[in-house]
Amino acid sequence: MRKLNIALIGYGFMGRAHSNAWRQVRSFFDVPYEPVLKVICGRDEAKVSKAAYRFGWEKHSTSWEDVVAGKDIDLVDICSPGDTHLPIVVAAAREGKFIFCEKPLANTLAEAEEMLAAVRASNCLHMICHNYRRAPAVALARELIGAGRIGQIYHYRGTYLQDWLVDPDFPRVWRLEKAIAGSGALGDLLSHSIDLAQHLVGEITEVSGLLKTFIAERPVPGSHMTDSVEVDDAALSLVRFKNGAVGSIEASRFATGRKNQNRFEINGSRGSIVFNLERMNELELYIDEGPESGFRTIQVTGKGHPYIEGWWPPGHIIGYEHTFTHTVLDLLKAIDDQRLPNPNFEDGVRNQRVLDGVARAAESRKWESVSQTV
Amino acid sequence: MRKLNIALIGYGFMGRAHSNAWRQVRSFFDVPYEPVLKVICGRDEAKVSKAAYRFGWEKHSTSWEDVVAGKDIDLVDICSPGDTHLPIVVAAAREGKFIFCEKPLANTLAEAEEMLAAVRASNCLHMICHNYRRAPAVALARELIGAGRIGQIYHYRGTYLQDWLVDPDFPRVWRLEKAIAGSGALGDLLSHSIDLAQHLVGEITEVSGLLKTFIAERPVPGSHMTDSVEVDDAALSLVRFKNGAVGSIEASRFATGRKNQNRFEINGSRGSIVFNLERMNELELYIDEGPESGFRTIQVTGKGHPYIEGWWPPGHIIGYEHTFTHTVLDLLKAIDDQRLPNPNFEDGVRNQRVLDGVARAAESRKWESVSQTV
Amino acid sequence: MRKLNIALIGYGFMGRAHSNAWRQVRSFFDVPYEPVLKVICGRDEAKVSKAAYRFGWEKHSTSWEDVVAGKDIDLVDICSPGDTHLPIVVAAAREGKFIFCEKPLANTLAEAEEMLAAVRASNCLHMICHNYRRAPAVALARELIGAGRIGQIYHYRGTYLQDWLVDPDFPRVWRLEKAIAGSGALGDLLSHSIDLAQHLVGEITEVSGLLKTFIAERPVPGSHMTDSVEVDDAALSLVRFKNGAVGSIEASRFATGRKNQNRFEINGSRGSIVFNLERMNELELYIDEGPESGFRTIQVTGKGHPYIEGWWPPGHIIGYEHTFTHTVLDLLKAIDDQRLPNPNFEDGVRNQRVLDGVARAAESRKWESVSQTV
Amino acid sequence: MRKLNIALIGYGFMGRAHSNAWRQVRSFFDVPYEPVLKVICGRDEAKVSKAAYRFGWEKHSTSWEDVVAGKDIDLVDICSPGDTHLPIVVAAAREGKFIFCEKPLANTLAEAEEMLAAVRASNCLHMICHNYRRAPAVALARELIGAGRIGQIYHYRGTYLQDWLVDPDFPRVWRLEKAIAGSGALGDLLSHSIDLAQHLVGEITEVSGLLKTFIAERPVPGSHMTDSVEVDDAALSLVRFKNGAVGSIEASRFATGRKNQNRFEINGSRGSIVFNLERMNELELYIDEGPESGFRTIQVTGKGHPYIEGWWPPGHIIGYEHTFTHTVLDLLKAIDDQRLPNPNFEDGVRNQRVLDGVARAAESRKWESVSQTV
Repeated sequence: MRKLNIALIGYGFMGRAHSNAWRQVRSFFDVPYEPVLKVICGRDEAKVSKAAYRFGWEKHSTSWEDVVAGKDIDLVDICSPGDTHLPIVVAAAREGKFIFCEKPLANTLAEAEEMLAAVRASNCLHMICHNYRRAPAVALARELIGAGRIGQIYHYRGTYLQDWLVDPDFPRVWRLEKAIAGSGALGDLLSHSIDLAQHLVGEITEVSGLLKTFIAERPVPGSHMTDSVEVDDAALSLVRFKNGAVGSIEASRFATGRKNQNRFEINGSRGSIVFNLERMNELELYIDEGPESGFRTIQVTGKGHPYIEGWWPPGHIIGYEHTFTHTVLDLLKAIDDQRLPNPNFEDGVRNQRVLDGVARAAESRKWESVSQTV
Repeated sequence: MRKLNIALIGYGFMGRAHSNAWRQVRSFFDVPYEPVLKVICGRDEAKVSKAAYRFGWEKHSTSWEDVVAGKDIDLVDICSPGDTHLPIVVAAAREGKFIFCEKPLANTLAEAEEMLAAVRASNCLHMICHNYRRAPAVALARELIGAGRIGQIYHYRGTYLQDWLVDPDFPRVWRLEKAIAGSGALGDLLSHSIDLAQHLVGEITEVSGLLKTFIAERPVPGSHMTDSVEVDDAALSLVRFKNGAVGSIEASRFATGRKNQNRFEINGSRGSIVFNLERMNELELYIDEGPESGFRTIQVTGKGHPYIEGWWPPGHIIGYEHTFTHTVLDLLKAIDDQRLPNPNFEDGVRNQRVLDGVARAAESRKWESVSQTV
Repeated sequence: MRKLNIALIGYGFMGRAHSNAWRQVRSFFDVPYEPVLKVICGRDEAKVSKAAYRFGWEKHSTSWEDVVAGKDIDLVDICSPGDTHLPIVVAAAREGKFIFCEKPLANTLAEAEEMLAAVRASNCLHMICHNYRRAPAVALARELIGAGRIGQIYHYRGTYLQDWLVDPDFPRVWRLEKAIAGSGALGDLLSHSIDLAQHLVGEITEVSGLLKTFIAERPVPGSHMTDSVEVDDAALSLVRFKNGAVGSIEASRFATGRKNQNRFEINGSRGSIVFNLERMNELELYIDEGPESGFRTIQVTGKGHPYIEGWWPPGHIIGYEHTFTHTVLDLLKAIDDQRLPNPNFEDGVRNQRVLDGVARAAESRKWESVSQTV
Repeated sequence: MRKLNIALIGYGFMGRAHSNAWRQVRSFFDVPYEPVLKVICGRDEAKVSKAAYRFGWEKHSTSWEDVVAGKDIDLVDICSPGDTHLPIVVAAAREGKFIFCEKPLANTLAEAEEMLAAVRASNCLHMICHNYRRAPAVALARELIGAGRIGQIYHYRGTYLQDWLVDPDFPRVWRLEKAIAGSGALGDLLSHSIDLAQHLVGEITEVSGLLKTFIAERPVPGSHMTDSVEVDDAALSLVRFKNGAVGSIEASRFATGRKNQNRFEINGSRGSIVFNLERMNELELYIDEGPESGFRTIQVTGKGHPYIEGWWPPGHIIGYEHTFTHTVLDLLKAIDDQRLPNPNFEDGVRNQRVLDGVARAAESRKWESVSQTV
């Protein structure tokens, strides 16, 4: 079996999820390369060392520059905060590595465009990680839409709702600081709804926007002080698609009781589709067929369902992290086929254009156009 | 038992629902007056005559002017199309009748303001029929919010989705003609979402808007011609409330599979509430209480639930038309108490202000302010 | 319009539901006869007099013998407790009235057989009220099964769960007294599950049984005493059908949180069907059709659905009491057609045979055979 | 980190699930021992060799005798068919290994008793794998019941429904052969419902039973012949618990549309609990608390929920195989604590006693007693 040496930058939530995907993929799927978990990189020596042991990496490092320059490294996987993406990508592109980067591509549109230019200049293979595209139910939704099962699309209704900021005593962490996080619900959550919208419906060309911060000051951990929240708690937008469909998308960290409700509903001329990440193994489908019509709940765990052949018998559900396993599987296949995987940095830039449009519209209090030419 | 003589203008869908409410209310509730179904009025003699027999009215008439002038009539109930509301209300107000009017109050804001002026000038008791306020589950939602059970409100998410226009062969009926219907999904459906939003959350002060007609031409019944659709198929809006909450509201007649999904979700600092008219007897409630927290489905058919004492044992559901029965019950009580019922024409004007704001915003492509002073 | 004069015996829960059905049916359906609510009968003069006013009956009476002998009465509707059914039916049959009787037919199998003999001897038209057969969703289930949509039936799984006896302080009412009520959950609730089983699947030929009383003594209202509970709190049975299907049926008044869960699931060779009375306007249907298969929720409120043409547009739900309206509609039609309606006393006896079998099996601790020849 | 050397017998469905658990546990939890995947054993050299590579085992073997005798092996994990459990356990017990065995313990009660005697004689630590006990939602159910949240238990209603045998062309595989599989739905599926019943409610003391084979003959793979199905397609039982609760349990492979519906509902004096494996990350809970009462859906993925601290943030669900990871985690802890884990072979024998009782009752057509003394 051919091997592919991986370097991972970042050992937080995403680092853990990506590590698992690289470690597990060969046990469940036929892969063209056996991924080798070569090195994991982070700023805190003690923590990254422990992460290397737990997540199964051969080595650890505290210098991403060294790691990216490593001759034995084939692929650089970037899971560090958004403000670090640009320099790492530029360096990795210069080294001609395969590049896999967490979303959103960058904290600003300008950085994202620069990253795309860098990978194009180096002609290296690049992918952005929008893992939810590869939940089997979402992949099935894409197949059904592609086959015309729900006809022409009229409506997209997307929400990404969480509630972890409702508590006013929740501290003022780095995710609430603009310089590091870029934005709040907008980049963290709405970017997922936008990616799914463009993946399933098509290009967004116009947006209106509303950004809201409900709680302006939060306690600074380990002090008696508070500091200001610099990012949005909620982001809402109405959108128009190039193909005539209209949509509403909304993300919030203040939706009490909604833990991870990445949900969309798509209404077409012949049917409708609903997905909710909290019930990730299910897809709701409505097809107009007279008195027997109804929204059906497909358990997307059976014969003929995307990615399921690697897992368990029907009705034995898979978990959140498996969406990453599917993503690295398809990345390995793209490397083997020497083609650009999907979604890649072009999609990342298109996503960032919409995020930027929503922010502009929230500021101008007008509808704003969005260019999708990359 | 004291009697109250009712005249009903209109015998269509709403005429049937109101007739049923007047006929049934005394069999299920203790009423201060026994409603007498005196006369039903409509333009088509044959049809209104048949309606009188079926719906249980003593007489019928084809002249609303005669009916409104009738000395034996105490209350005029208006269920005719929106373009007829103004003259009937003006005449009924002049006669000093109690006035009960279907929503939306009028086809334009100007007409609605004139109607409010008329009832104020005559000092007569007036009510607008937003029947969904009196679905027991909605009334319970209002109680819970009033008692602070979900805390400070951050989000309102309202949709009213139907699908009866998805078929391109559906004819160009009067509801698609601007002069008669005023608007499409906006006045017919979004007005309900707006009423519930203002009833449950508070005053809306700013709106953005999007109106969309997906199918521009439809067949004219009984001909080979088509005619243009003059109203919106879908209406979307982002809104800001006076109390700081933000919302998205959306109505469509193109949401395939959604038959009557008048749904709202309200997220507050301590909990959340969800209602869907298609499951009218249920209310979903989330209260944050640690590891046992979850959205619970309350069957609003039991002890302590609004209006239920009149009906059946727990778990024996009530139907759509019962919301009208509750509305006329409360109207009868207000008459007995000589106080203005709720919602009344003031609420009707406030609703119309928001509808007007959404239409203006859709046109201007900007956020628009909405005044709520009446 | 021809008229049909009705006499109603009983003014309790069922009396109220039947009154409503007789009063409402002509407003929503084309009826061959206009039902005239002639006289309502009960033992308590004050209560029956009030009931007559509220429910819309012309007269009241405290003598069922007089009522049944009334020359102006065409149809006798029996809603009094089970121990009174036999004498009333025998008298009404002798008078040649049309007879409509609440379920269960009697408190014992012997009485039920005697009632069937009486109506046969008089050759009068008879019907038993199993109203749930005429919930639109149940009627649709019957149509789908009849059309072979779910193929050969393998499993029936029926529950009728309530929770009103869980409170140990709930008093020892007449429903817990064997002489009046006959049995507990068995006759009150399990009889419904059995009727639906035989209506939808076919004849039950063998049963096992378990009867359980969880709380043996309850307070006597208005005293400091307790008295023994003489009937079952829960009744369970495994059953075999003549056509090879197997089933489990269960009724309980101790299922905390289940208010009126009359639910069944039927699994066939090509599909499955699920109904739950608490969501009476919905039917769940599964049809095996490859990767798109899933349980769909049909809103049984639309075009082509049984009984719906009389009511409201799609998605506007109907209530519990409407099932009685459908039942009297079909009874009026059967009278017009001079044919025996369905279900009639033969079905009532068959149902009682199964109830009797379950009670015998609970006693013998063995499987018991059930004869279905009537 | 101390290491523990594992040998796995069997590389089928369960072998894959157990391998994953041993491989993954140390990446998500703090373990007292690092499991070393030493050797995997199976009869087919080519297949077991491939399994060793994919599942991450150091070596493979085709002789379980050699493997069990291996000096470097600390723990023997048995995932081979039921007819092989006895000899492997006897040998492993003789060698003093830790023993972990898939359910059901054996194909017959006699074998199960012999296995328990063997591990007791050797005084070795033993565990049976009933993985569903360690779904976080089931573990939470156990906590809630233990804390008295639903009060005294009255009802248990368990089903385990699948549909993979509905197709009459499905071949006559080894699972339909009595000598190898022992039984059909009874041992494969009903054993899970029984384990959960005894884990959550208490000891079962009496059972009635019904075993049914719907399709008697099936095609033999690779031939034009058919052969007889020797095991049950469906198994149903009514049960009585020692504590006075009553239950119904049912398993079927003929429930079209039910893919893996391992569901239970428990009704107590103060509340109820519902679990369904197809929505494994959720638990439904009803607590009686007046007009706000309703079945709530707890997303068992958050703070304070069993096993969740090892995984992802709230609302990010886990998959089927994680229940095995939790099981081996607790097995490692028990080894570290030198105490008998739960469930162990005693529970396995108790389970087998109930299975045996159901089979006897199905044969005798009477209720049968079950002894729970081990």
